Amino acid sequence: MPLYALTLEYDGGPFVGWQRQENGLSVQQVLEEAAAKLNGGVVPASVAAGRTDAGVHAEGQVAQLGIDRELPPERLREALNFHTRPHPVAVVAAALAPAGWNARFSAIHRGYRYRILNRRARPALELGRVWHVQQRLDAAAMHDAAQRLLGRHDFSAFRAAACQAKSAMRTLDRLEVSRQGDEVVIVAEARSFLHHQIRNLAGTLLEVGQGKRGVEWPRRVLDGADRTRAGQTAPAEGLCFGFVRYAQEPDWV
Amino acid sequence: MPLYALTLEYDGGPFVGWQRQENGLSVQQVLEEAAAKLNGGVVPASVAAGRTDAGVHAEGQVAQLGIDRELPPERLREALNFHTRPHPVAVVAAALAPAGWNARFSAIHRGYRYRILNRRARPALELGRVWHVQQRLDAAAMHDAAQRLLGRHDFSAFRAAACQAKSAMRTLDRLEVSRQGDEVVIVAEARSFLHHQIRNLAGTLLEVGQGKRGVEWPRRVLDGADRTRAGQTAPAEGLCFGFVRYAQEPDWV
Repeated sequence: MPLYALTLEYDGGPFVGWQRQENGLSVQQVLEEAAAKLNGGVVPASVAAGRTDAGVHAEGQVAQLGIDRELPPERLREALNFHTRPHPVAVVAAALAPAGWNARFSAIHRGYRYRILNRRARPALELGRVWHVQQRLDAAAMHDAAQRLLGRHDFSAFRAAACQAKSAMRTLDRLEVSRQGDEVVIVAEARSFLHHQIRNLAGTLLEVGQGKRGVEWPRRVLDGADRTRAGQTAPAEGLCFGFVRYAQEPDWV
Repeated sequence: MPLYALTLEYDGGPFVGWQRQENGLSVQQVLEEAAAKLNGGVVPASVAAGRTDAGVHAEGQVAQLGIDRELPPERLREALNFHTRPHPVAVVAAALAPAGWNARFSAIHRGYRYRILNRRARPALELGRVWHVQQRLDAAAMHDAAQRLLGRHDFSAFRAAACQAKSAMRTLDRLEVSRQGDEVVIVAEARSFLHHQIRNLAGTLLEVGQGKRGVEWPRRVLDGADRTRAGQTAPAEGLCFGFVRYAQEPDWV
């Protein structure tokens, strides 16, 4: 059975998250049920690079899907974009997966973006895509604080209680905070992240931006390895899964 | 009665357009009914810099509103953002209008942006915000063609049949087409535009981008002054009213 790699864009708003759940529609279900139409009605299993939570968006999620049929990747892409309608899930690229490739375990780098709309007026155009914070944030201080978290650490202070990873050791390669007009944007990159890690980092950096905490505080929270000392978990809607990189990159079309 | 100036952001999707109509909810109605709550229940009349069509978005529409009550502009902004809920209309700035100022007739420069999502996959994240065109467009050729339309001309070939302007003479100051990743973005600036002018320009430039027409064709259509020779009216959802400038700029807060 040939294995395909897919790059997915989706609006996380209407979904319970990437993963199939009893309580509502998931991106995985939409994708797999569309694929079943090309697989003689049999629903194939898919695996994603990141199991995004309810409300989290993706520009460049990557998933794998085995279909009992040889299809040119461009035809698979077109067919899935037809069958995933009208859901806000689109296959932007497809490829035959390289031998031994796995969408989740072969990923060597993941990039996310967290957007804060930092103005008095509530969002109209970007509703559901940003965290609305009215108090003026000091993005430079947030960036300064973020730089002290880079490198290999035990990120226990920033993981969700429900996080299933065996180890909380992660290497944070990039955590940049910048002001872009009315927005404060956080860009985070690492080989992999813990559950809620970026949203917990965003909620912690926020307190620095508000002036409630000094720029050295998030690092103290990190070193304390105690989740109860960190800031709030920032809301899902501000987060977007940007891209995944692989040592052996599929030949996307 | 004090006159206030408001800068508005809205998602045009759920509305019949800026202007009040019998057949559905308009941005004007949402704004005026919110203002009535601050005006002893009396619905005040508003005037906008541009009467955007159904589905057209705004980042920086400007409107005026007379309310029988002296309010600090920041309080008016906050109160309107409360009372326009849950509609996707936000007041991003407010000011007391300068003496003699009119939101529509005092405007000296207007800027719009038209976004084309130019890729095979249908939009997921930008659904309702872009015109989806699958065939690869030559943005450089579109830009070249656009430059030949700049300056003062009779734009009859690009106005809607329903256009109510007395004269079709307009001065097009900027019409830039550029590729930004998967998008082809058209930026248009002028003192004022005719009804559907930008959408008709976008639909005409599209044919150049597709290679169906040469770069000199849109100028020949302009010179012919015949609407039936131009391209299609590009869909509303790709258009966003970006900003308005005034000789006497209100003191925005």
